[in-house]
Amino acid sequence: MPDKILDAHTSDPTVMGWMEGLPPPPDKRLAWGRADHMRFPTHRYAYSHMREFLPTARVSRGQGAVWDLPVALRDDLDAVRFNAMDDGRELTWEQALSVNFTDAVLVLHRGTIVYERYLGVTRRDTPHIAFSVTKSFVGTLAEMLVQEGRLDPAAPVGDLIPELARSGFGDATLAQVMDMTTALDFSEEYTDPSSGIGAMSNALGLTPRAPGYAGATDVYAFLPTIRKNGEHGERFTYRTCNTEVLGWIVARTEGKRIDRVLAERIWTPLGMEQDADFLIDSTGMPFAGGGLNPVLRDMARFGEAMRCDGHGNGGQAIAREVVATVKAGGSAAEFAPAGYQWLPGGSYKHQWWIMPGNHGAFSARGIHGQAIYVDPVAELVIARFGSHPVAANSAFDPTSLPAYRAIAEHLMRG
Amino acid sequence: MPDKILDAHTSDPTVMGWMEGLPPPPDKRLAWGRADHMRFPTHRYAYSHMREFLPTARVSRGQGAVWDLPVALRDDLDAVRFNAMDDGRELTWEQALSVNFTDAVLVLHRGTIVYERYLGVTRRDTPHIAFSVTKSFVGTLAEMLVQEGRLDPAAPVGDLIPELARSGFGDATLAQVMDMTTALDFSEEYTDPSSGIGAMSNALGLTPRAPGYAGATDVYAFLPTIRKNGEHGERFTYRTCNTEVLGWIVARTEGKRIDRVLAERIWTPLGMEQDADFLIDSTGMPFAGGGLNPVLRDMARFGEAMRCDGHGNGGQAIAREVVATVKAGGSAAEFAPAGYQWLPGGSYKHQWWIMPGNHGAFSARGIHGQAIYVDPVAELVIARFGSHPVAANSAFDPTSLPAYRAIAEHLMRG
Repeated sequence: MPDKILDAHTSDPTVMGWMEGLPPPPDKRLAWGRADHMRFPTHRYAYSHMREFLPTARVSRGQGAVWDLPVALRDDLDAVRFNAMDDGRELTWEQALSVNFTDAVLVLHRGTIVYERYLGVTRRDTPHIAFSVTKSFVGTLAEMLVQEGRLDPAAPVGDLIPELARSGFGDATLAQVMDMTTALDFSEEYTDPSSGIGAMSNALGLTPRAPGYAGATDVYAFLPTIRKNGEHGERFTYRTCNTEVLGWIVARTEGKRIDRVLAERIWTPLGMEQDADFLIDSTGMPFAGGGLNPVLRDMARFGEAMRCDGHGNGGQAIAREVVATVKAGGSAAEFAPAGYQWLPGGSYKHQWWIMPGNHGAFSARGIHGQAIYVDPVAELVIARFGSHPVAANSAFDPTSLPAYRAIAEHLMRG
Repeated sequence: MPDKILDAHTSDPTVMGWMEGLPPPPDKRLAWGRADHMRFPTHRYAYSHMREFLPTARVSRGQGAVWDLPVALRDDLDAVRFNAMDDGRELTWEQALSVNFTDAVLVLHRGTIVYERYLGVTRRDTPHIAFSVTKSFVGTLAEMLVQEGRLDPAAPVGDLIPELARSGFGDATLAQVMDMTTALDFSEEYTDPSSGIGAMSNALGLTPRAPGYAGATDVYAFLPTIRKNGEHGERFTYRTCNTEVLGWIVARTEGKRIDRVLAERIWTPLGMEQDADFLIDSTGMPFAGGGLNPVLRDMARFGEAMRCDGHGNGGQAIAREVVATVKAGGSAAEFAPAGYQWLPGGSYKHQWWIMPGNHGAFSARGIHGQAIYVDPVAELVIARFGSHPVAANSAFDPTSLPAYRAIAEHLMRG
């Protein structure tokens, strides 16, 4: 359980002095294999140093020119006020950064960086784990293949990945996996090590395995063990195992690992400024559901291209039709039963969250505060890294979603 | 022991099919924590994928322009002939590539790439472990600090690193550490896990620790345990622990980790084309004696700057005085007793090997076939990655050093 005594300041890695010293003194050291990287407050350092805790693959930007993002910083955003959705208290944007355990945040308005802030140990060139923001990259890749006619959204997963034919995924369609309307015996309970996500983290090697561990030691041994639980296609249930399967399908369709697909189809075309790090399982397969570590500006570039219907870095970097399917949104009826208190009227499409309100906003969302938030009406993109003590977005949605909306309204006023 | 049946072709990772398949089938998988990355023949894949086996730090190239290396490939080098030093047989340059288990090799003549070849699973953008070529980067960094007056070569190590005052390093001078004339109870026997280098690999986490392992779990706990064995300053003995200490001294002097020092002082000024990966111990400290993973062209850039007295990437990237100390060479008298059969008349200076012959050639050398070879008279730089079954350079010097000299003579003829 998170330590309630520590707030964003007292848990700031620079205040803690973690990993300072050459070498760091024993009480300031974080180390491999101790789960330091997955535990508050030490995760506040580790989330921006994941490659130093775990093996990673590189997502290469290639040798091309960087997509230049113009910068015209505004000093008026910090004072923008909003009311938290839970207790109604008034906060400024700047106050919310510490309430939210924000590590870094950037605001793009009409393609120009108007706000950019790095806190704690993060910097412009620091990759930070994006957790489930990764899913929106993978969902976008999958939809590219659908639009190119190389994948059929109606195809059963068992046909695409024979190894999964007898699993719970076997008779689910690709579309159901992409929109997470599969019915599976897999619990996404981050605080329970015996949950589906806990077992999958163990299989991935993301969390250390207990002595005598006899479970799967890679994710591709784990996925076939997941059973069906109900009927596919009826309702949205957020389960990371869907994205692992989706990544597997994309990789097999392209005939290369997902890190390479991502490099060729997104990192290079968008002129990203840094390579990204991708956590991998013990057999070298990337963790498609949450293992990507980009720098903040590169996450913003992806959001900006999505805002601009796939246009970015001086060209049509992502097919317009791909973005259109995300912007069209998913089924609110299938989404509603999942009971997301802070996302009324929302939906989930191609691994993107369609947000409440009349701006057609959509978002990539990861545990502990990772986000790309795109508001087409306000011509706004927000990219954010965080290291909140609590994994679930419900813990910080009340002080972040209204902040995004307040910034949108503020920028629309000029 | 290496498998004598496998030659360069039959052990080629693409012939072996390692890590092919999505995911790779069980018999084609290499995985973390099994020493697959440190064992022939599987190391032939792993040496160009080290970040996928172990945690790494990034050596950043920054955001500057790449130092462009002109390319004018010549097709006459493959046929250059030479005689092996051990059995006298005649080989062509191209034949030697497989005799030597070469992974990649590049020849720069007067700053132009005249030959560049990537074999097996290596490519232009593949970082490959440089092993002890790393030492020459670290030695160059240390000499920069000496030339800037920030380090005194006569200073005892115990004054520079108080934690080492009571170790065998305590009364050694910085110069003795830089030139490896320390006398220490540390054996550099790669085939003996109980040797000094074996114990240090365990401390680093480079090799998996046996169950019940009770030794040091980071290199900074290990180094103070090394005892003196004789008198410092009398003769050269190659021991990697010296470079770990040297890296520690550089880091403490600069107040930052060696990966950052390397980024600021070499990677950025030289306009490297890729970030490099640096293996780290469990506390995040880079393995200064052998953990750097650059791409081949970036290793060549370093060699070219050394050849050109520090000039590279359009300016004086490395101080001229630093390079001059290396080119001036070390003490042949201190070097001779070490008995390097293939390096008669050689010496060792600032973590560079001064090579036999009258060309003033010098080299960075790493186990299993890593090298930067600089021949100032022939205006030649060779960068090479290998994955020879045997660690020690003596196993492949007889078929590589005369090949380099033959290429030098060939290029000097026009």
